[in-house]
Amino acid sequence: MISVAKGFLFSGISAGIKKNKKDLGLIFSQYPAVIAGVTTRNKIYAAPVKYCRKIIANGKAQAILVNSGNANAFTGEKGYNDCLEVADALSGVLAVPGDYVAYTSTGVIGVPLPKDTIKKALSNLKSHLCEDPHDFAEAILTTDLRTKIMSKTIAVDEKQVSFTGISKGSGMIEPNMATMLGFICMDIRITAAALQNILTGIVDDTFNMISVDGDTSTNDMVLAIANGASEVDYEALSEQSKLNFSHTLRELCTYLAKEIVRDGEGVTKVMEITVSGAATKRDARVIIKSIINSPLIKTAIYGADPNWGRFMMAVGKTCIEGISSETISLSMGTFAIVEKGVINNFSREELKKYLQQKEITINISLGLGEESATGWGCDLTEDYIKINTAYN
Amino acid sequence: MISVAKGFLFSGISAGIKKNKKDLGLIFSQYPAVIAGVTTRNKIYAAPVKYCRKIIANGKAQAILVNSGNANAFTGEKGYNDCLEVADALSGVLAVPGDYVAYTSTGVIGVPLPKDTIKKALSNLKSHLCEDPHDFAEAILTTDLRTKIMSKTIAVDEKQVSFTGISKGSGMIEPNMATMLGFICMDIRITAAALQNILTGIVDDTFNMISVDGDTSTNDMVLAIANGASEVDYEALSEQSKLNFSHTLRELCTYLAKEIVRDGEGVTKVMEITVSGAATKRDARVIIKSIINSPLIKTAIYGADPNWGRFMMAVGKTCIEGISSETISLSMGTFAIVEKGVINNFSREELKKYLQQKEITINISLGLGEESATGWGCDLTEDYIKINTAYN
Repeated sequence: MISVAKGFLFSGISAGIKKNKKDLGLIFSQYPAVIAGVTTRNKIYAAPVKYCRKIIANGKAQAILVNSGNANAFTGEKGYNDCLEVADALSGVLAVPGDYVAYTSTGVIGVPLPKDTIKKALSNLKSHLCEDPHDFAEAILTTDLRTKIMSKTIAVDEKQVSFTGISKGSGMIEPNMATMLGFICMDIRITAAALQNILTGIVDDTFNMISVDGDTSTNDMVLAIANGASEVDYEALSEQSKLNFSHTLRELCTYLAKEIVRDGEGVTKVMEITVSGAATKRDARVIIKSIINSPLIKTAIYGADPNWGRFMMAVGKTCIEGISSETISLSMGTFAIVEKGVINNFSREELKKYLQQKEITINISLGLGEESATGWGCDLTEDYIKINTAYN
Repeated sequence: MISVAKGFLFSGISAGIKKNKKDLGLIFSQYPAVIAGVTTRNKIYAAPVKYCRKIIANGKAQAILVNSGNANAFTGEKGYNDCLEVADALSGVLAVPGDYVAYTSTGVIGVPLPKDTIKKALSNLKSHLCEDPHDFAEAILTTDLRTKIMSKTIAVDEKQVSFTGISKGSGMIEPNMATMLGFICMDIRITAAALQNILTGIVDDTFNMISVDGDTSTNDMVLAIANGASEVDYEALSEQSKLNFSHTLRELCTYLAKEIVRDGEGVTKVMEITVSGAATKRDARVIIKSIINSPLIKTAIYGADPNWGRFMMAVGKTCIEGISSETISLSMGTFAIVEKGVINNFSREELKKYLQQKEITINISLGLGEESATGWGCDLTEDYIKINTAYN
């Protein structure tokens, strides 16, 4: 078992929402904790998003309930009331205040939540609480093929702080202010406001810089919960230790975000794209998204086809002012293909071999400024089609 | 043979750019004509786009040369000079002024144009000129499976005006101010400025409202050429006849645009999406694009999966202000699925049957205003992947 953040217990069971699969998960903090979070910007957002926004605004939590198999999205007022009712029932079972329970859902849209099925399973869910997050990580999956967990402990000012992050997501992935679902447990003592501030910036560079299929879920959410069990106080840390804390949180989020791409529906290859020399960071991000969402690039990468002209197409189609054939540079791995607009001699056969790797690095410099960004995408394969033609 | 616009001749031959396929096409007007056009907004645009923008600005033309198999894109100054050289050679062969020759290209990006091969073939191309546009329509294809031609004659003020439109396009299709390649020949007499004005508006509603894969070509172009051979003068027409003219041109462009979608790479089904009740026409268009570019919707349509929640996701992910679960309505064919946020009872089995049709109609009302738009998209299939994993 991996070493997890202190004072947290996890559980995951099969409640009967899905057939013969774990579908209900719980994170429980043994101490009242602070919570921060980032939720989808999709205007058609699910009931649990509406509900969790209130929990996040309040900044306090002790439990996070998650069900898979049903998104409780586009279910109207009834869906919201169902969400409230289940959360309220769980607060009774756990003997924690009603507004200390966060509740997120993932699965099919537009189908009423089987609330009675879920409520009946809550005692069983509680009785399975343990220090191992694996069952929880399994219970929150949908089309994911594997669990996504990372724990990390760092030394700060002669004490130890631990982090445990768990995510899910495989399709409907182009997060816009959060990924499908991500949960980060920390045993540091920190205010909800400070945690929110750190989390938002990191999510923008990590979960928000991945895409599997360019689709933004109605249920995207990242929640970070910190319970103070390490007895390390963030405010009392040295500047260096604060940086160390943020750096570790960033590392954890990067890992979990990349894991979502690696386990994307039908994915066989991951691309890491860095765009530099941009006039603004926003421009660099827009170009990365244009590249990782291009079906023609995704299929070329799948086929290890050295059709690099498609990258030029995807950069140019953003219509960003100043982009020009004459200042752009492109490299893949160690292959410098284009330098300031001039095509180099390179071996197409060698490049094809490189493109057969599972992880491919692409660097593009625009020659327009000093800003840069990095993002992660994947290939598009027949399996993506198969998985999504008959989800139900 | 179909009846074509008067005074136009067409030719299409195999010049040797592609193996054993027609790859060089010519439209020749027997009279000096006016030309209007709309070109890609992609910032990485091909040499022929740069060249044709000058021809369009000049407004005069008598020949349109097209090669397939090579886009002459990202080929630098040499690519532009190659384009000039070929156009100049053709002006000699046809004995027309050098600046009366439009030249467009389509095919792989970043490979030098085989200009000598093309120049050698020009006499042969001229000698094949005839009234039948079929060889031309075939010579401009890339991954298209079939030619796309429409001719139409209308009576205006007791005379006749004819139109012949030809298009190509199958992948890298989300035109931004034009489709892949479209050519419209007319025998009306009209000024280049009036023609440009009419064409731009129509292209926005037709070629710019389709998508196969959300990718915008470096070579997108629609050219309209009018030679006056009908002896009908646009300026002298009644208002009603002017409207009739525009209406016919719109009908022709709609047909050619839809033909591109129908023949899209791997396509088995076409969706026609109308978004109404929008605050602005732009909003309606953005939502249509979000829908027709969503891989999850495209795969659901392919699998005839009645997973309508994905449409709600795609509407909401545009983040357009005011969109709400409570005012939105959705219907597919005759199935009223959601009305002002309330889910209707409908038979999933019957809806599944409807989704097995080849042409599917989807209507979405936002309940936010009076504006609307229509667009056309397609499904995403294993064949799209196969076609694009090894284009070369």
